[in-house]
Parts: sequence; C-alpha cells; structure tokens
Amino acid sequence: LGRKVVITGVPGVGKTTVINRALALIEEEGLSYGSVNFGTFMFEVALEEGLVRDRDEMRKLAQADQRRLQKTAAQRIGEIEQNIIIDTHCTVKTPKGYLSGLPEWVLRELQPDIVVLVETDADQILSRRLSDETRTRDMEGYGGILTHQQFNRSMAAAYGMLTGCTVSIVTNPDFLVEKAAAHLAEILR
Amino acid sequence: LGRKVVITGVPGVGKTTVINRALALIEEEGLSYGSVNFGTFMFEVALEEGLVRDRDEMRKLAQADQRRLQKTAAQRIGEIEQNIIIDTHCTVKTPKGYLSGLPEWVLRELQPDIVVLVETDADQILSRRLSDETRTRDMEGYGGILTHQQFNRSMAAAYGMLTGCTVSIVTNPDFLVEKAAAHLAEILR
Amino acid sequence: LGRKVVITGVPGVGKTTVINRALALIEEEGLSYGSVNFGTFMFEVALEEGLVRDRDEMRKLAQADQRRLQKTAAQRIGEIEQNIIIDTHCTVKTPKGYLSGLPEWVLRELQPDIVVLVETDADQILSRRLSDETRTRDMEGYGGILTHQQFNRSMAAAYGMLTGCTVSIVTNPDFLVEKAAAHLAEILR
Repeated sequence: LGRKVVITGVPGVGKTTVINRALALIEEEGLSYGSVNFGTFMFEVALEEGLVRDRDEMRKLAQADQRRLQKTAAQRIGEIEQNIIIDTHCTVKTPKGYLSGLPEWVLRELQPDIVVLVETDADQILSRRLSDETRTRDMEGYGGILTHQQFNRSMAAAYGMLTGCTVSIVTNPDFLVEKAAAHLAEILR
Repeated sequence: LGRKVVITGVPGVGKTTVINRALALIEEEGLSYGSVNFGTFMFEVALEEGLVRDRDEMRKLAQADQRRLQKTAAQRIGEIEQNIIIDTHCTVKTPKGYLSGLPEWVLRELQPDIVVLVETDADQILSRRLSDETRTRDMEGYGGILTHQQFNRSMAAAYGMLTGCTVSIVTNPDFLVEKAAAHLAEILR
Repeated sequence: LGRKVVITGVPGVGKTTVINRALALIEEEGLSYGSVNFGTFMFEVALEEGLVRDRDEMRKLAQADQRRLQKTAAQRIGEIEQNIIIDTHCTVKTPKGYLSGLPEWVLRELQPDIVVLVETDADQILSRRLSDETRTRDMEGYGGILTHQQFNRSMAAAYGMLTGCTVSIVTNPDFLVEKAAAHLAEILR
C-alpha cells in the first residue's frame, strides 16, 4: 500500500497552492502522489449508491447515512495502492461548533500515515479571506481563526493517538509559499 | 431519540446562569430540554444499586465501581428520548491532575450530539470565585485557570474525534451574560 | 496491581533529575517505585525475540513489527505488580511530524493511572539544550519548543479520554528543581 497523507488547513490558508507547488517539486524527482478531495469522493460514492442527485442533497442526508458514506469513502481511499494526498478539513466550523473531519470511523478505515496542518498567522488568513472576492464566506474575526487553528491542533493530536500517524505543521506565511511547498515536499518524500 | 447536549465549564464561569437563561429563551419558542447533572445522576444510580448511602461515600468507591457507575449512568441518559442537557465537567482538577469527565466508556454510551464549553477570561473567573462566599474552593491562580480551560479544549477535541459530536465554545464575559445565553439558545435550537 | 505513572517531557526539560529527586523523597517515607524506560524495555523485548541485534536496528524495523513490539512491551509493563514509573515521550518530534509515544494499542495494554508532563518555559529549555555539550541534538528554536509542549498537552488529553488516567503538569523552572521534585513526589504518594 502507498503512503496516505491527509492535508488540512482552515479556509484561506492557501492549502491548494502549497499542495500544487509541493507536488510539482517532487514530480521533478520522479515521485508521484494521487490526490483526492474527501468531500468530492464522498459525493461520488453517494451518487453511485443513488443516495443523492446533486451536491446540495449531501447536506440534507440523515446523520446515519452521512456517517456510513464517510466510512465507505474512507475504506475505498484506504484501499488505494499508490501514494495519495487526501485533501480535507481537520475540523469544520458549523453553527453547532467544530466538527471533526476525521472521526473515529473514518480514521479506522483510512489509517493515514501523516496528517499535515497547513497554518499561518490568523491576521494573514483574515487578509487573504478579505481579498478573495470569488467566494462569499461567513466572515470570522481574528480571534475565531486563532481558536480554530488551535482547536485543529488538538484534534490532530487525537488523530495521532488513535492511528499512530504523525502530525506535521507546515507554516505558509505571506511571501514564503515556496518555503512552505519545500517543507511539504520534504514530508511527501 | 432527542438531542443530547453536554454543557461544561470550569467552576465560577457562570455555567448554571447561562443554561437557565438559555432555557428560558427557547421555552418562549415552545422548545424544551430536560436537564440532568451527571454527578447527581450517578449518585442516584449508586443509591438504587445499594452501593452507597450518601454522597460522601461516592468518593470512596473503588475505581472499578466508579467506572461501572459512570457507564450505567451514561447508558440511561443515552436512552432518554427527549432533548436533554447534561451538566458536567469537561475535566475535573484533582490532586493527581486533570481527570476526563467523559472518558471513552461514558462517550460510547452517551453519544452526545454537542459538547459546549462555557468559558471566559481567567481573570474574570478568578474574580468571580473570590466574590463567591457560599463556596469554599481550593484557590487556584490565574495561570491555573488559563491552563485548565485550554486543557478542556484539548479534551473536548478528543471527544469530538471519538463521537463525531460538535464542540462549541460559548463565551460568558462580565456584563454579557444575555449574549452568552442567546448563543447557547442558538445551539440548543 | 501497582500504580502506573507515565512521566514525559521534551528533551532538555530535566525530567530525569526531577524523577530521581522525587524518588529520593518518597523513599525516605518507605514508598517505592520501580522504573522502566519504555524505549529500552522495547529494545529488550526485541532482543529476546531475536528481531534485532543492536539498538540501531530498532529504527529499521518495519512499522508492523515496531507496533507489535510496542504492544508487547506495554502488555508486560501492564502486568508488573509493583508501583512503576514509565519514562517515555508524550510525542516524539520526527522529520514527518509529531509521533504519539502512547498510541491506542499501547494505552489499551498499559492502562496508566497518571500521565505527568514535566514542563518549563521554552526559553529555559533552549538554554539547557545549548549548554548540554554531551549530546548533539537537532537544534530547535523557541517557537518549536513552545509548539511541541503545547502539542504534548493536547496529546495527553487524548490519552486521558481513552484511559481515564489523570494528566498532571509538573513545572520544572530554573532554580526550582526541589519544588518540581516535591510536586512529583506528591503525585507519586
């Protein structure tokens, strides 16, 4: 089986850019990783099973169905034989609080080798969100972002206890995306 | 089954006031929640089983008995069909360190939907404890309260990983109890 | 069965000194604790099983073998009848991120009663590492040490959720090692 690397980060941290730059770096060396977005993968499983017709219906599924879908998706990703990056959230901020992106039933199937937290200072994330005109996001203040990132670290620790995966923090500060990508590439090597 | 909402907070944070105000708000809208105190509920189970005669004897129980009681109490609360608030501690500070209020064997039975952390700044908690003449508490400094609240967040993250419950932080600062109650009411809705 | 106390701390925090001083204090009172280093214990199990010939080979073992060794070591320590101190790391910093020292399969066998985090300010740890000429360590900055200690707390919370062990923080600041030892002695009593 290949290596399974979960990559997480709060909205606006620049996760996708860091992933793409890191993949470019290691591909130059002949290393390759497949890549799945956990939410998209779950949606595809739901489509196949005839549970939903479009992505909007995903949110309306009963909790039991959602959890079963999460488990099936994790199981299938767990069976992929090549090295793979799983793009997901460590926790999702919902109106009812922080929700684990990789609860026990997902972790037991997925068995990740590494969980990466892409982070940067809360004020930089706030600026990046403010300047991103393509998305309308619920605006969250500095303190909220700070707390979310701290909570993600605590959650990742619990993931590490349950699975024995390592937890790696990749910092992606303004003007230093190449450094962040080099760090992630080193983790992927 | 109804919704199970665990509400926690360090001593002096004003948890009971926030809960009562939030319940008053949602009752105006026709919503209702039952309410149990986990410790009291455990004591009642112990009385029924003839394990203890008074609350003092609870502390003297063997660890195996205490854990079995916790599990039975959690099981019974888990079977309650209405919406319910469970008033307990995220962690309890003991002479041997922080003790989880909802260890694995409790969580597996209880299956909470939401764990709420009622928090405020450590200095405000310290002031509230100092002005509360009805209780004699072991006095703890600013740093101790700060650490306790931070540790509670980490513990709550582990609860979220195991059960998939959301973790919600309700801030209860001086002069803003109505705002805290409104936030909790929103979570309970 | 005796009490099992896991004692952890980042490199340079002075864990061994605090343990030895605390053991001296309680031995004066007639209390006794055995003591094992988890890594050394694992190595001895590996030697017995003919898996390795020297300590260097430990690192080259397949992950499945390492985990089985961890589990066997934890099982044997779990069966020790006297009070015992287990000297290990809460998390180990590796090139792939923080690795749990007591993942689920270890905790389930070991069933610790208490996990102690020996801590002090990151700048003091940095100074102690710089002045320790006997070891060549990968140099880590202030921020890295701060993050490592915070992450250890989060990890310890997850240990507490799974096993019901208490988590105790013993601070070992400059010039106050006797106070740290007295605190640890109180935990061991």
